[in-house]
Amino acid sequence: MSEKFEQPGAALERGKVYLVGAGPGAPDLITVKGLRCLRAADVVIYDRLVAPELLAEVRPGAELIFAGKRPGCHQLPQAEINRLLIEQARRGRLVVRLKGGDPFVFGRGGEEAEALAQAGIPFEVVPGVSAALAVPAYAGVPVTHRGLASLVTIVTGHKERGTEASAVDWRTLARVGGTLVILMGVKTLPQIVAELQAGGLDPATPALVIEWGTLPQQRSVEDRLAEIAGRAAEAGIRAPAVIVVGEVVRLREVLAWFRGEGTAPLATDDPYAIMADE
Amino acid sequence: MSEKFEQPGAALERGKVYLVGAGPGAPDLITVKGLRCLRAADVVIYDRLVAPELLAEVRPGAELIFAGKRPGCHQLPQAEINRLLIEQARRGRLVVRLKGGDPFVFGRGGEEAEALAQAGIPFEVVPGVSAALAVPAYAGVPVTHRGLASLVTIVTGHKERGTEASAVDWRTLARVGGTLVILMGVKTLPQIVAELQAGGLDPATPALVIEWGTLPQQRSVEDRLAEIAGRAAEAGIRAPAVIVVGEVVRLREVLAWFRGEGTAPLATDDPYAIMADE
Repeated sequence: MSEKFEQPGAALERGKVYLVGAGPGAPDLITVKGLRCLRAADVVIYDRLVAPELLAEVRPGAELIFAGKRPGCHQLPQAEINRLLIEQARRGRLVVRLKGGDPFVFGRGGEEAEALAQAGIPFEVVPGVSAALAVPAYAGVPVTHRGLASLVTIVTGHKERGTEASAVDWRTLARVGGTLVILMGVKTLPQIVAELQAGGLDPATPALVIEWGTLPQQRSVEDRLAEIAGRAAEAGIRAPAVIVVGEVVRLREVLAWFRGEGTAPLATDDPYAIMADE
Repeated sequence: MSEKFEQPGAALERGKVYLVGAGPGAPDLITVKGLRCLRAADVVIYDRLVAPELLAEVRPGAELIFAGKRPGCHQLPQAEINRLLIEQARRGRLVVRLKGGDPFVFGRGGEEAEALAQAGIPFEVVPGVSAALAVPAYAGVPVTHRGLASLVTIVTGHKERGTEASAVDWRTLARVGGTLVILMGVKTLPQIVAELQAGGLDPATPALVIEWGTLPQQRSVEDRLAEIAGRAAEAGIRAPAVIVVGEVVRLREVLAWFRGEGTAPLATDDPYAIMADE
């Protein structure tokens, strides 16, 4: 029956780089294809937020290289990572570049793909579930909802190195409507909120900050836009966190379903049979 | 080793509904958790764009119910689907509601979750890879890219039933910058383009329409914003299609990697071992 899952060009190849999204945090939110790449890899170059359960899936003898990227402490500069990917592929290895979330959503995957293309190294992108959409879902918030939000904007709160001003026009964003999801915005949240309010966004707009979303330690704080930065600071919320601003946050009262949040881990008698060794 | 993949509360339960995202089209882009739910289901209520390879994964004796939703021909009204989910869960079955993409991104999953919550039926959301992000990736377009796009907006081109005007303020969207991804917008593309240009978006902005993204029959047309609607009509592009507007479209020239596009299916000797029966 496995043939049913064959796709044209699906054979995994050596001398190639797979830019794989690990998903938002919970290891079982990786894709089937992503896991397949990981299990076939000769070398895995991974980022900080990748679940250890995923790294444990590599085959014996596969090499694991930590590419760092702690906030404020980039262990391997991007150019170094690019060079490493190229070098490993040139050695004829099956290279997996494992990144949190989706490699093409604020993952710098586009830059890595560019470097590979320029070096003539074949690559594939294996999309991952983006934290921008899945973390709100785990907090009981659909980013779109009939009558409440016909659009969602995903934006980074991170300023590019060497620039003081954000590349984002927050004041225009304030007028666009729908749901706003901010990644990497915990540190800059006070300025973001000020800009959004200056742009005309109602200070009473519901806002939510979710820390460690999709994981057992997930927790979140909710408040009006005007109060959310202070509330998050008070609660000691730190990265990784996803910020949601918009009317959809109200649905959380009814829709919150994830038992990880605010509860002790539950015992389970249901091991992930699918993840077992083959 | 399967214990490493256990998450608190991970045991699948009967009398419960799992709102599962099937991903953007290619069956191997479903999540590991989504596939696990599908294989455990007593009943699967599925939408039109779900891959047949996924439906073939249910266990013998599981019931499959098609919920319809062809464009312009809603086979089962939403209220009927909600009622069906509730009824099946009350019968003590493990219910999977399988939806294309992500259930909380224009999937009406929020409405189904609301109905379940109101009826006191336990449910979980299993996020899927959204077509809004993955289909551009398969066409060689990262929706964000350093120096080109610090934000991405995902919006529906579909008008709500009974309304002529779109709920979306396209003219403000035109000024927000970054990348614009439009789902369900093929039919309304001429009006959308007119509104975006009226809002000040440069007619020369690169635009791309991708039909059947991530599947072997994927094809796309690219042109300037001003010409894209005519070009897509000329090529006979129809739903399902994803539209991308923004400077990131230019990266496609270098980054296009998916061999499905414009090529005959390739033979593969690499069956999806992970998908084999357990």
